[in-house]
Amino acid sequence: MKTKITLKDIARELEVSISTVSKALKNSEEISRDTKEKVQAFAKLYNYKPNNIAISLKNKRTKNIGVVIPDIVHHFFTTVIRGIEKYANARGYNVIVCLSEESFDKEVINMEMLANGSIDGFIMSLSSETQQKGDYNHLKEVTEQGIPVVLFDRITNEIDCDKVVIDDELGGYMATKKFIEQGKKRIALISTDDYLSVSKARSMGYRKALSESKLGVDESLVLKMPSMEMDENRIKEFLEAQKPDAVLCVNEIFAVYSMRLVQKNGLKIPDDISFIGFTDGVLSKYANPSLTVVAQHGEKMGEVSAKMLIDKIESEEEEETYQTKILEPTLVIRESINH
Amino acid sequence: MKTKITLKDIARELEVSISTVSKALKNSEEISRDTKEKVQAFAKLYNYKPNNIAISLKNKRTKNIGVVIPDIVHHFFTTVIRGIEKYANARGYNVIVCLSEESFDKEVINMEMLANGSIDGFIMSLSSETQQKGDYNHLKEVTEQGIPVVLFDRITNEIDCDKVVIDDELGGYMATKKFIEQGKKRIALISTDDYLSVSKARSMGYRKALSESKLGVDESLVLKMPSMEMDENRIKEFLEAQKPDAVLCVNEIFAVYSMRLVQKNGLKIPDDISFIGFTDGVLSKYANPSLTVVAQHGEKMGEVSAKMLIDKIESEEEEETYQTKILEPTLVIRESINH
Repeated sequence: MKTKITLKDIARELEVSISTVSKALKNSEEISRDTKEKVQAFAKLYNYKPNNIAISLKNKRTKNIGVVIPDIVHHFFTTVIRGIEKYANARGYNVIVCLSEESFDKEVINMEMLANGSIDGFIMSLSSETQQKGDYNHLKEVTEQGIPVVLFDRITNEIDCDKVVIDDELGGYMATKKFIEQGKKRIALISTDDYLSVSKARSMGYRKALSESKLGVDESLVLKMPSMEMDENRIKEFLEAQKPDAVLCVNEIFAVYSMRLVQKNGLKIPDDISFIGFTDGVLSKYANPSLTVVAQHGEKMGEVSAKMLIDKIESEEEEETYQTKILEPTLVIRESINH
Repeated sequence: MKTKITLKDIARELEVSISTVSKALKNSEEISRDTKEKVQAFAKLYNYKPNNIAISLKNKRTKNIGVVIPDIVHHFFTTVIRGIEKYANARGYNVIVCLSEESFDKEVINMEMLANGSIDGFIMSLSSETQQKGDYNHLKEVTEQGIPVVLFDRITNEIDCDKVVIDDELGGYMATKKFIEQGKKRIALISTDDYLSVSKARSMGYRKALSESKLGVDESLVLKMPSMEMDENRIKEFLEAQKPDAVLCVNEIFAVYSMRLVQKNGLKIPDDISFIGFTDGVLSKYANPSLTVVAQHGEKMGEVSAKMLIDKIESEEEEETYQTKILEPTLVIRESINH
């Protein structure tokens, strides 16, 4: 039996990226003629068909949902999965999880694999590399073939589909406002580069709250980490140089690490310096002092995503309408700020 | 197109458990004749075939690996997945993850779903309910059909397959020995019920080290939690009643929670009371004080499991031989014990 050839196989054989193969097959003008001819000839030779089983999907329900997320190291995504599992199981669906590990190529490979008839629809959060590249062809292909997709948390406006987000800007705003009300003067932000849609929105909330106050935005108090990975030295240098009296961190690991650091330097939390993080995970709950956080309600987000997807899968309507649900974050007050 | 009927469908229709259906179809003597007849008649009527696509598997490689694990809330399993992903991707395999959520039924459903031609083999860690029931028919079915299985961490002797474990007994022994050498007198253990194979092994190591010492085993110093879930009150009562000067915990959450508790009660760590946990996760690293742990090398375990599975999938040999690889744990010394 001849094995089905995939985008990945073509990319490997011709030593080009998966994104190049995908664009070349669509005759994109971004790709040189030489490369396009090579890719198209190879695809023809090996009888490549994009997701060629997808057509049969409408008639054959698998009762499986495919979830493609960046990682499971961050607590937030594990809670979303729990919410998806709970809701989907109750409606008789199984859940299959694949990780993109923040890689564009892995996201494409996983979608291609699952779209071949294993699942009835996708729930996804985009990898940081996909958001950085701004290349959403793999999502377009799937939605154009009529496979329902729900994007959550890390979304894009370039794809028409159902979406679920938390109001991250409001979260950043609420947290920063809290610091301002408590009389904090040097309110810092530890964030990541803006290509990550959630970091961007949280930063906007931070800036909005400061702009509305007498303090204004001081760019020297904003640290942008190049990725979600922890860089202990950069945080250390930043905190020691800027001496903030309040710090908002876009995730809980940055916050918990920063708290340890300032404590070793003899500062008292929350009097000398206060902290608020994002994500209400075990780390926040069991840190010492426990961390005040903007809770993102991951489990709720998972339930809402699963409901939207299954409703769409089981809908008999021909006309497609899409909605974006916006969940409100909550501030969970713990020991890392004054009460 | 007629949908394929599954074990789950039969169980739901006849209002019996999945385990009962599975046994009835095998004519097990554990099941009443009445139930067996009902189940068999129903299965015949709807043309049920156990994993009927599995036979074609030998000829058709999917290049996908199915991973079925109890949860992704515990850091250990997330690191194992990372190891599996890394190794499998390098050899051109994709990884599909399904969660049993510690439920026997969900484990069976997930295996049945994946065994229908989506994957070339399984990497699994058993759910606590499966270990409690001692029912491994779903694993037997899969291995008898020639689908390779690798069990890791939570394993059973009742299935012939490749296995990867960490020497949990040695881990418990090393940690307890460390406390004894430091002159600790009241060394407590916070564990879970013995049906969880890993907790049992860790407890055995604890008992062995104490039995070899002058201290001996004091059963009042052993707390067994009914599950892996945190019960804050039980831990609180135990620590306040027994006043140990050293505590070994079978996971990091129990340990980090206990540390907070004794600190609130005015005790100094590590002088008044020392702590060692299992699992080297973010929680251990960023706790305050940071937690000394028995590191289980989850990523390594994932890599070894993936290598064993892929070697078996790609092996041309007819004769089946199985091996059990035992990895050695390491003690990672941090602030929660004296140096």
